[in-house]
Amino acid sequence: MPSTSSSAEISANVKQLLKVFDTEQEKLLQEFFDFLRFQSVSSEPEFAPEVLRCANWVKSFLEDAGMKVELWESEHHPVVFATWLGAGPDKPTLLIYNHYDVQPVDPLELWESPPFEPTLRGNEIYARGAEDNKGQCFYVMSAVRHLLKTNKSLPVNIKLCIEGEEETGSQGIGLFLDKKKEQLKADHLFIVDLGIHTPDSPALTLGVRGIVTMTVELIGSYGDLHSGTHGGVVYNPNRGMAELLATLHDSEGRVAIAGFYDDVFDVPAAELQKIDTSFNENEFRSMFGAKTTGGEKKFSAIESAWIRPTLEINGISGGYAGEGFKTVIPAKCLAKISCRLVPKQNPLKIIELVEKHLREHTPGGLDIVITQNHGSGAPALRTSSDTAGVRAAADVLTALFDIPCQYILSGGSIPIVPELAKAAGAEVVMMGFGLPDDNIHAPNEHFGIDRIKKGFATMAGIILTLGR
Amino acid sequence: MPSTSSSAEISANVKQLLKVFDTEQEKLLQEFFDFLRFQSVSSEPEFAPEVLRCANWVKSFLEDAGMKVELWESEHHPVVFATWLGAGPDKPTLLIYNHYDVQPVDPLELWESPPFEPTLRGNEIYARGAEDNKGQCFYVMSAVRHLLKTNKSLPVNIKLCIEGEEETGSQGIGLFLDKKKEQLKADHLFIVDLGIHTPDSPALTLGVRGIVTMTVELIGSYGDLHSGTHGGVVYNPNRGMAELLATLHDSEGRVAIAGFYDDVFDVPAAELQKIDTSFNENEFRSMFGAKTTGGEKKFSAIESAWIRPTLEINGISGGYAGEGFKTVIPAKCLAKISCRLVPKQNPLKIIELVEKHLREHTPGGLDIVITQNHGSGAPALRTSSDTAGVRAAADVLTALFDIPCQYILSGGSIPIVPELAKAAGAEVVMMGFGLPDDNIHAPNEHFGIDRIKKGFATMAGIILTLGR
Repeated sequence: MPSTSSSAEISANVKQLLKVFDTEQEKLLQEFFDFLRFQSVSSEPEFAPEVLRCANWVKSFLEDAGMKVELWESEHHPVVFATWLGAGPDKPTLLIYNHYDVQPVDPLELWESPPFEPTLRGNEIYARGAEDNKGQCFYVMSAVRHLLKTNKSLPVNIKLCIEGEEETGSQGIGLFLDKKKEQLKADHLFIVDLGIHTPDSPALTLGVRGIVTMTVELIGSYGDLHSGTHGGVVYNPNRGMAELLATLHDSEGRVAIAGFYDDVFDVPAAELQKIDTSFNENEFRSMFGAKTTGGEKKFSAIESAWIRPTLEINGISGGYAGEGFKTVIPAKCLAKISCRLVPKQNPLKIIELVEKHLREHTPGGLDIVITQNHGSGAPALRTSSDTAGVRAAADVLTALFDIPCQYILSGGSIPIVPELAKAAGAEVVMMGFGLPDDNIHAPNEHFGIDRIKKGFATMAGIILTLGR
Repeated sequence: MPSTSSSAEISANVKQLLKVFDTEQEKLLQEFFDFLRFQSVSSEPEFAPEVLRCANWVKSFLEDAGMKVELWESEHHPVVFATWLGAGPDKPTLLIYNHYDVQPVDPLELWESPPFEPTLRGNEIYARGAEDNKGQCFYVMSAVRHLLKTNKSLPVNIKLCIEGEEETGSQGIGLFLDKKKEQLKADHLFIVDLGIHTPDSPALTLGVRGIVTMTVELIGSYGDLHSGTHGGVVYNPNRGMAELLATLHDSEGRVAIAGFYDDVFDVPAAELQKIDTSFNENEFRSMFGAKTTGGEKKFSAIESAWIRPTLEINGISGGYAGEGFKTVIPAKCLAKISCRLVPKQNPLKIIELVEKHLREHTPGGLDIVITQNHGSGAPALRTSSDTAGVRAAADVLTALFDIPCQYILSGGSIPIVPELAKAAGAEVVMMGFGLPDDNIHAPNEHFGIDRIKKGFATMAGIILTLGR
């Protein structure tokens, strides 16, 4: 691929940036720890003041960097929107997306150090949000600040869009996509919330799956009943739920909902060849303690995660499941279900199919209530490897790791991305330095100093390279 | 049935006792409310001091009644054991069983008045334990006190065994059955923890079902996994549990475990004819909001509850089932399973059969862990209607309600009864004034003043009649 910025030049930039990080590391980590201490849990209303304080901290950081910063406020948590347009209207504009909110910390007792008191053990920083997404957000902000503080000008205009509700469905930012279209306008939209395969393999993500989620309740009676008196009389909602959920997959591991695969197409071999589908089964097992027996039997584990849709039961709860025993037949049983979607699957259509299946298979004697989570889900997204943004990022990553950048897919979803890309009119680049065992969304989340450093150098390197 | 105590005499006794209750009602209710205020929740260690205070309150009450009282203490909650042996060794001995411990109160928010602040609304007293079993225990204690205070002697010796761990499996009393055999020795064992069909139908219970309980865990990974990254790769324990539990019943509503029904015999028609199997489907639905579609299709609702064994899923929990949504694949899913047994089914054999089935049907890729609750369960119990105890109780109930006493069965279980009956060498009579909608084990448990009064008159009437 042609590049006006030579490999040698990119390499020199990256090396210089890594040195800068080393010099600044102590100060940077102090700032990062401050960022991590905010309990910016977006899902729990009692943390709202803390989420706001965190947003203001981000705002101050970026103002200090020399950017113009706004908080987009609504009844939701604010979006921090920062711009530096000094390159001028003739130059490309780079919009970078991150989020400053984090997942809840439960179960707290499984954390080895307090989730909001960042703790360094070896190379790894342990805290809620250490990786997802404060870690990735922090190297972006630091890289931009470094460039703005040490250069009279930059070759691209920069916009940062850092939202506060990614973990709860991005409703806040969603409100502004139409209204702020002009401000969001960009050539490249970098989503810095993704990962790499292993610490030593540079990679960019060319696709994420879509998602729909729903809550299903089976209701049998007004209140809990005694399983002696009423056992064998009423239809136990726990039994009904088990029987209902058991109809969702067939013996081949396929989702057994009529029409579920109708719009799923085989990924062309040429496209698949670009993707690094290497997968180490033993490593997976020793990392997670899990076998890879959950997918469709016709597909490999990595295919199941990346190019096939799924249906998962994320939660199930009915009756008494604590210490000891309570002989109840619960009034109801609840399940949380999500589907991950691949390109061309329409979220609304999938919701309808799942709902129809659930209603048709509900055991007699039980009532079913299905509720959608806010919004109607998000479609999958695939990006080309042949855009200026991806090329620049790949060149920088190749220089940084000194081996060719790979392309991967992600089984995850970032629901706001398709809409944000549309609002910005930008081509999407999905990158990041997450690793599969960072424990994001789980106890003992962590992120490595080495990866913050790589992220810092990569992000600054991309800004310098994009202007070539 | 021959009776030396004439119907007229029994009737006169009962009428007189009802009058006594009316006269004493205010004082009695004050004492009952004091009893109900003890938070004697046996399952939760933090309530242990309160359980002990409650035991001592019972002890004082019975000492004041003129009984000799011991606390049988161990590492478990104490058993209150009280005796009055003034009738002499030639007279029959009556052992009455109750319990002073209660179920936990969760979910607290569904109580309309505080569970440990007894509240009278109309005829009903609302409190945890109001019926089960403090209410039934209280009318027993009050009746015995009344007789001892107003008679120089009584025609039978009386022993009260009031345990503090019925709701958690009766381990405490279990320790003493062998050691206290001599003290427990009796002719009649009255279990006063049962019920009647409707407020106007006198009934004695001729059988309870046995029970076994177990906890089943399916484990898929070391920790919770992200359902995007790992969805379609690992075997979700929630899905595995649903599929596993769905194998436990067939489409005819039968328990689909090989051998489960091997020892179940058809109840002889002659025996069934003695039992009042009347059942009002519409009343059931309007009382509980539930349809009666849970049992074996070959059997009626009342047969399913009384003469057929069952398997119920009392609890199920895996992943996140709270507000909002968490896209996890849980490390494990847990289910609580119980079976109710009919006569001739062996609890240990049933446990083995269920375990074997669960292990054989566990989906590949998941590990299963099955744990028994303490003890190995209890067998079912049936008693004859042709014993002196049952005859006396039936005569008193017939006199009290002025319609013939019916015989019923119970779908519930009182696991300690067979062992206690064996230790005492006594014939069992199972009685009580519970009603199906008393909300025992649930929020807003309640018991009626009319039934405490009936219980008082019945219990005292039985003592007077048994000596005939």
